[in-house]
Amino acid sequence: MKLTLDCLPCLLRQSLEAARLTAMDNHHEQAIMDAALALLSDYKRYTTSPQLARAIHRQVKQITGSADPYRAIKHEHIRAALELYDQARARVLASDNPLLIAIKAAAAGNLIDAAIYRDIEIGQAILNRLDLPMAICDLDELSCRLREAKTVLIIGDNAGESVFDRLLAEQLKPATVYYAVKSQPIINDATLEDARLSGLESCARLVESGCDSPGTILEDITPAFADLLWHADIVISKGQGNYEGMSDIPRDIFFLLKAKCPLVAGHFGVPLGSDIFRYQAQSS
Amino acid sequence: MKLTLDCLPCLLRQSLEAARLTAMDNHHEQAIMDAALALLSDYKRYTTSPQLARAIHRQVKQITGSADPYRAIKHEHIRAALELYDQARARVLASDNPLLIAIKAAAAGNLIDAAIYRDIEIGQAILNRLDLPMAICDLDELSCRLREAKTVLIIGDNAGESVFDRLLAEQLKPATVYYAVKSQPIINDATLEDARLSGLESCARLVESGCDSPGTILEDITPAFADLLWHADIVISKGQGNYEGMSDIPRDIFFLLKAKCPLVAGHFGVPLGSDIFRYQAQSS
Repeated sequence: MKLTLDCLPCLLRQSLEAARLTAMDNHHEQAIMDAALALLSDYKRYTTSPQLARAIHRQVKQITGSADPYRAIKHEHIRAALELYDQARARVLASDNPLLIAIKAAAAGNLIDAAIYRDIEIGQAILNRLDLPMAICDLDELSCRLREAKTVLIIGDNAGESVFDRLLAEQLKPATVYYAVKSQPIINDATLEDARLSGLESCARLVESGCDSPGTILEDITPAFADLLWHADIVISKGQGNYEGMSDIPRDIFFLLKAKCPLVAGHFGVPLGSDIFRYQAQSS
Repeated sequence: MKLTLDCLPCLLRQSLEAARLTAMDNHHEQAIMDAALALLSDYKRYTTSPQLARAIHRQVKQITGSADPYRAIKHEHIRAALELYDQARARVLASDNPLLIAIKAAAAGNLIDAAIYRDIEIGQAILNRLDLPMAICDLDELSCRLREAKTVLIIGDNAGESVFDRLLAEQLKPATVYYAVKSQPIINDATLEDARLSGLESCARLVESGCDSPGTILEDITPAFADLLWHADIVISKGQGNYEGMSDIPRDIFFLLKAKCPLVAGHFGVPLGSDIFRYQAQSS
C-alpha cells in the first residue's frame, strides 16, 4: 500500500504523540517535531507509510537517547492484557467455535494500542467485542487450510495485543506456530522481550523478522524470516502496519487487523474501526 | 493564544483539506502539501496559529491561481444557512429570551463550517442546539451592558455562520451594530461579498478588518477597524480563529465560539465541541 498525502498529517500527529510520550522536556519535544517535519518534507523518498514512520522513530530514539523509548508503556500494556487473559481464554474454551473467538480476541487486543491510557473500560470493551460479528471474517478458508497445515506463521504487531495472540496460537495446533516480532524496538511494536513477557513462548516459536519499522518491510527481513514467510503453509499478518507493508505480497496471506485509518478501511470496504480477518489469494 | 506544537499536525491536516477542496489535480495537491510542509518546518517564526495558517493559505491561493479558492463552497454554505434562517428566526422571536436564543443560533451556525458536506442532518442539528444549554453563557453581563451601549462590534467568522449572526445583530438594537469581515478571502471566512449575500446589510454596518488570516491579527487591522475595536461599547468576537488572535487583547470582550480544538477547549475548561459565550474583562 503506497504512501499517500493523507499519511503526512497522520504521521506528524504520531510524531507529536511520540514527543509527548518520550521526550524529557519541551526542548526535546521541539527537536522531535523538527526532525519529523524535516523527514516529512522529504516524503517522496519513501514508498510506504511504515518506511517513513521508521525514519521518524529512528530520530525519536536518537533525540531521546533511548533505544526503546516505549519500553515502560509496552510493559504496562502487557501487564494490563495479562489481567484480561484468563477471562478471554475461558470465553474461547467455552465457545462452540473456539477458533472464531480466538480470532476475535486477537483482533480486539489491538484496542489496547491507542486506548488503554484513556479509557478505564478498555478491558470490558475487548471482552465485549468477542460477542460482536467481525466486518470481514474468512474463517472457513482458515479452517480448511488448517486441516493440512504443518506450519503457521503469525506476524505480530503491538505489545499487549501479543498476549491475546496466544489464544490464537493455541487454536492453530497441532501445526507448528511461529510468531514473528520486530528485531529492534519501534514504537510499541512487540520485540522478543515483549513476546516473552506476553507468554508466547509457551505456544509458539519466536522469531525476529529483521524489521525495525511499524510494519513488515520486505527489503529488511532476515533469511530465516524470509524462509518462513515464503514457505509456511499459512501466514497470518497482524495489524495495519504489516498490512501497509505487505498488501501487495505475492503469496496467499490472512490479514487480521483493526482498520484504524480511513484509507485502509477503504481498501477493505468497511467502516473505520472495523475488525477484519481477510484471506488474500496470491496476487502475482 | 500562542502557537503550540499541537497546532502543527492540525494545520497540516487543514492543508490537506485545502488541497483536496481546491487543487485541480494530484500535482497541485502535492504542491500545496510541499508548500505547507516548508512553512510548518519554519514554525518558530510564527507567534499564533492564524499567522501560520495565513501563510499556508496564501500559498494555496498562489498554487491554485485563485484569489478565493473557497468561493463556491462559501456560497453553498450561505445558501444552506439561508434555508434555515426563517425557522431559526421564528424560534428566536417565539422565545421568552430572544437574546439567549440568538446567541445560541450564532454559536450553532459554526457547525456549518466543517460539517455541511458530510451530514445531511446538519440543519436539524443546528436547530436542536437552540434547545440545549451552552457550556458557558455570560448572558447577564451582555444584557446589562446592552442597556447603555450605543455601539456594538461583532467580529465575524465563517460564511454561512454569518447568516445566523443576523439573528444576533437584530437583538442588539437599538445600539448601532458593526459587523467586521476579512479584507481578503481566507479559507471559508466571510468577506464583504459573503456578508452581503448573507443579508447582514439589513441589520448591521459592514466593515473590513484589514485581515486576511483565519482570525484577527492586531498588526494587520485598519485604522477604521482599530477605532471600532478599541472604542465600541461592546465587542463580540466570533469563532476560534478570532479567539486565538485576540485572547490576550487589553480590552473587555465577549468571545462567542464553538471549541473545535482541545487546547482552546482546555483554555475555557469545557469539553471539546462546546458552545461558549464568555465575557473576558480587560486583561491588561
